[in-house]
Formats: sequence, C-alpha cells, structure tokens
Amino acid sequence: MHTRPIAITAGDPAGIGPEIILRAARSIASRPVAAQVAMIVYGSVEVMKDSAAREGLDVEILQSDLPSVWPKLSVVSVGEPAGPIAIGQIAAEAGEIAYNAIAVAVRDAMAGRLRAIVTAPISKEALNLAGHPYAGHTELLADLSDSKGTCMLLAHDKLRVAHVSTHTALANASALLTPERLGRVLDLTFDALRSLGIARPRIAVAALNPHAGEGGLFGREDIDVTGPVVADYRARELDVSGPISGDIVFVRALAGEFDAVIAMYHDQGHIPIKLLGFSIDPATGAWLSLSGVNVTMGLPFIRTSVDHGTAFDIAGKGVASAQSLIEAIDFAVRLSDAGPQGTLPAGEPAR
Amino acid sequence: MHTRPIAITAGDPAGIGPEIILRAARSIASRPVAAQVAMIVYGSVEVMKDSAAREGLDVEILQSDLPSVWPKLSVVSVGEPAGPIAIGQIAAEAGEIAYNAIAVAVRDAMAGRLRAIVTAPISKEALNLAGHPYAGHTELLADLSDSKGTCMLLAHDKLRVAHVSTHTALANASALLTPERLGRVLDLTFDALRSLGIARPRIAVAALNPHAGEGGLFGREDIDVTGPVVADYRARELDVSGPISGDIVFVRALAGEFDAVIAMYHDQGHIPIKLLGFSIDPATGAWLSLSGVNVTMGLPFIRTSVDHGTAFDIAGKGVASAQSLIEAIDFAVRLSDAGPQGTLPAGEPAR
Repeated sequence: MHTRPIAITAGDPAGIGPEIILRAARSIASRPVAAQVAMIVYGSVEVMKDSAAREGLDVEILQSDLPSVWPKLSVVSVGEPAGPIAIGQIAAEAGEIAYNAIAVAVRDAMAGRLRAIVTAPISKEALNLAGHPYAGHTELLADLSDSKGTCMLLAHDKLRVAHVSTHTALANASALLTPERLGRVLDLTFDALRSLGIARPRIAVAALNPHAGEGGLFGREDIDVTGPVVADYRARELDVSGPISGDIVFVRALAGEFDAVIAMYHDQGHIPIKLLGFSIDPATGAWLSLSGVNVTMGLPFIRTSVDHGTAFDIAGKGVASAQSLIEAIDFAVRLSDAGPQGTLPAGEPAR
Repeated sequence: MHTRPIAITAGDPAGIGPEIILRAARSIASRPVAAQVAMIVYGSVEVMKDSAAREGLDVEILQSDLPSVWPKLSVVSVGEPAGPIAIGQIAAEAGEIAYNAIAVAVRDAMAGRLRAIVTAPISKEALNLAGHPYAGHTELLADLSDSKGTCMLLAHDKLRVAHVSTHTALANASALLTPERLGRVLDLTFDALRSLGIARPRIAVAALNPHAGEGGLFGREDIDVTGPVVADYRARELDVSGPISGDIVFVRALAGEFDAVIAMYHDQGHIPIKLLGFSIDPATGAWLSLSGVNVTMGLPFIRTSVDHGTAFDIAGKGVASAQSLIEAIDFAVRLSDAGPQGTLPAGEPAR
C-alpha cells in the first residue's frame, strides 16, 4: 500500500464537488482493494458535513490530515464558511475556499506528502470574484507550482487524447503548432503511457488540416511541422504515426491501433472524448453518463480531474453522477502506481 | 411512383463503386417498395458486366436509359474502356470514365430527366490524370452546373451536420465564417430538413472557438459573427440555437435536441459523424461499418453520395460494404419525395 494519500480537492462548495466526493469515496470503499487507496479531502469540514447530511450518508467527517477508513472520511480544513453555503450560487466566499483547497494541496504535493491530486470542479467566476483571475484549474496549478509547458490529456475508456493547444481561439491553433510544442506533448504522452504500464506506447498524431492538408492544397502545417517531428521520433525507433486525418484517426484509435492520439486543438480532441463519454436522456434532458478523465501532464506532481463542471443547476439535489470522479481517482492511482498495472478494477457505475 | 429515375454514377471503375452498386441494387430490389425507386447506373457497361461476373451475381446488365427491374440493371454507357480495367490501379482511362459519368448525369439532371444523382466514389488522382483538375466531386458538380455557395451535409442515423467550410486549411476557418455564409448554410439546411418532412426544423450552430470563446477570452467570432446571425433567425421565429460549444453540441444533438448541427469547419463536423458511423475490426484491421451519407446542398438538383473513398486496396475482392451507398440512395429518395416522409424503410445492413 502507498503510504502517501491521494488529495481530493473539493472544488466549489456550492457545486456538485462535495456530494460526488462522498459518493465516490463510498463507492471506492466498497471494493476489496480499497485499502490501497488512502484519500484525504481538501476543503471545508462544515461543507462536507452539510453535504453528507443532505445525502443521508452515515459517514463521519473528521478534521484530520491522516487518511481514515470509510465510514470515516478525513478532511484537511482549508477554511470554513461564515454560515451555510448557498448551493448553486456563485459567490466569492465559495471561490476562496475552492482556491485554498488547491493552494494547500499543491503545497503538500510539492513537499512530497501526496501521491496525487484529484480535483473536483471549480467555478471560474467564483474564483475571479474571490480575487483569483485564472482561466481554470490548469492555469492555477501551473502558476502555483511554477510549471511551464503543461498539456491536457483526456481519457475515456481506451481512448486517450493529448492536446497541442486547448484554451485559445481556433485562429491561434496553427501558430501554436511548433516542433518544440509537438515534441513536448509527445514526450509527456510517452511518459504518461509508460506510467500506465504500456512498455512500448503507440501514438498517432492527428493532422491539423482536412485530409492532412491534401498534399499541401489545404494548408502546409502537416507537411512542414508535423511530418518532420514524426519522422524524427520514428528515426529514434519510437512508435509515432501521422499526421493522420482527424476524421479517421479516432476511429483507428478506438479499434486499438494506438494507445493515444495527439490532437492539434481543443475541439479536435474534446469532440470524440465527450461524444463517447457523455450522454443525455432524450426523455428528460438529464445527463445519463459523464465519463472521462482530465489529466494535466507536465506538473511536478500527478493531477487528474473530472471532465465536467460544477453543475450548479443540479447541485445539492442528490442526482449528480460520481462516475467521472471515480474514474479520475482510479486514473491517478494507476499513474502513481509503482507496481504492475491494474491494482484497482475499472471504475464501477455510480448513481 | 416517381417516373424519373435516380442516377447512380459508378465512380472510378478501378475502385469499389461498381461492386457496391450491384450489391446495393440487389439489396434494394428485395424490398416490398422497391418499385418506388427506379435506378439507372451511369458508367461503363463492360465494367458493370465484369463486376457482376466477379461478384457471381445473376444480373443482366442492359445498355439502356430506361429503368429496369432486378435481375436486370440499366446502364447508360458514358464510355467503354479499351480493355479490362486494372482493378485497384490509378489510371487516366478510369478517371475519364468516372468524369464522363458525372458530366452526363449532370446534363440529364439539368434537363429535368432525373430525380436525383447518387455518386459512387471517384479517385481525385485519376480524375487529374485524365485532365480534370478538381479537388473532388463537390467542386466538379458545382462547376458543371454553374452553382455557387454549395454546402456539405453529412448524415449518420439521427445526426445531420452541415459545414460552413470544408476543403480548406484550418487557418482559413475563421475568415470563412461570415454572416452571409452562415445564413446561406442555415437556409440550405432548413430547406433540406423540410424536404425530409420535418415541418419545424431545430438547428444548432456549433461554436468556432473552445467554450464558444469563453466570453471573448478565446476569440470573438462566436460573439461578433455567429451570435447576431442566430439572433436574427430567432427573431424570425426560426428554431436556431447557438453558438454551442463544439464538444457538447453533438452530444445534445444525439439526444434528439436538434435536427441538424451547423459545424464551422471540416473536422468539427466530420469527426462525430465518422466516429459514430465508421468502425474497424480490431482483430483484422478491416472496416466493419461504413455508414453515413454525404449530401451536396445548393446544387440545382439533389445529390447524395457515399461517405467513403474508392478503397482501391479492397476493390474487386468482394468484401466492400454497400451500406453507405444504400443509405445515400435512401436519403436521395427521401429528399426527393413529394409525399410523406418515409416511403422506404431504413437501409438494411449489406454484406
């Protein structure tokens, strides 16, 4: 068993973070191998207690920085609200607690006390109201840990997609595709796949342009930038393919041909992952499935996250799915596991 | 019954076009309502006879411009090869026959003699070798019919996606998104959906930028261009939504919320359609499913197409799937049907 715990930052106290953490912890506690995953929540003790009461869960919330065993759950208090949190509301006080949870967890991770950080969703607006003007988790984590050149990896089932660029205008995608950046993303992806126990990763690079540029007719980036980088990796006997047309590369990855795909920009990678991982009930419009894990590569610690937002509209109603959070915890376990792959079974469906 | 036939252009004689036409025609002939679909192939009589012999099909290939009933199949001869065609090879002679089939079919369609044109795949390289330097079918059809402002609609099952731009570098996608072009694509999509029998179409417009630009932080096109166009259509009481983040809009469309999605560029629309319609056998690497229809909107006649290429590597081997061609024929029937929607059952699986 790893002695270092996995930190779960509770996210915005007014969102679905606290309740899905409770459900995920209970779900994971029911597994035979649960003792291999020591978890500690970073957030507000009172918020977690309130959420447990609303959920009707028989769990004891402890203020402690030592892992405990369900039906106990340890919480590192990073600040407590002045009164009850207004669920579903954007507020500076909630943003401040969400920020503090991340800041304290990063401090502990940098001090070597954590196995990984798994983050529940935050509200960018609440964060900004609290005086922390970050575009999102990734930018905040990079800043707190003084990291440059991070990269987003999304994973759903067997499909894993790393991104050359993400939170920027589409018009910038071409300029952001440089040999240096593509090489950095490839290196980080090779590292992550090896951490998952894949000895000889097979990576496909998606084309930036339709039909990989159709011989230069639809843009030259795939010929001028991507082609030489791929050739360089292949010359070093690394299994990199591409550029492969964006509308085909994910079909081939799904068939098992590649362990990961490098997407050129946000939507190219997010569309296939969310199309496969997310689903909506046609009758009610409610989310049926929110599967998928978001991994930030290039930080000095392991960080995984849910693949969805705070869902203020359903917070506190007992209907939010813990599926993505369970997957994010499992992924963090696998990435940080020194032993053979697969100490945990795949995430089971949560309510 | 429509008295005007549907033209099936045979595509490149060295590709899978002839064999999938035979399989599609046999499959459709077995339906109770087959008499409602009169088909005529435009291509080479000898090529179709050779293909039928290779397929071991008991079909009589007639040189005729009058529809016939299976086991007869009428072919308008647009030129015959000097000798047997080398299957799977790119050749000028094959490109010339493929070109002629399209040119003659367009002439007949413009003269009002056809209900629709359904096209089997061509080789751009063979077309160019034959002295016809077109990027593909769409450009050729637009040129032959002197059409401006065509638009590609892809359809798979309940998902229909029209494109603001397609065969151009990604770096051009932003500049090609203009109010005029988006309005044209919306108008053509409304027309197509009404032709399919949808009285009050619901259309979603995908965002160009991640998170629809996150309030202008990731690009302003969604605010400056798309927003006002959507507002204008809504003011005219047309059911248009958007801009909606590209990684969510297709999930919502799949749940039945929209009848069509307007994609901003090639990969944004092609990735979801092909991910859902195409699949590969992990064990053999062979294509298991090639489902999907390509419709060119904005021509003076109805044109649908398969959603895949010539597949030279498997041509003549009896393994190519006719699924997409059957769907393309069914879609052309529905688009051209003056009566109520759904005179034909959905395309059945083909071998």
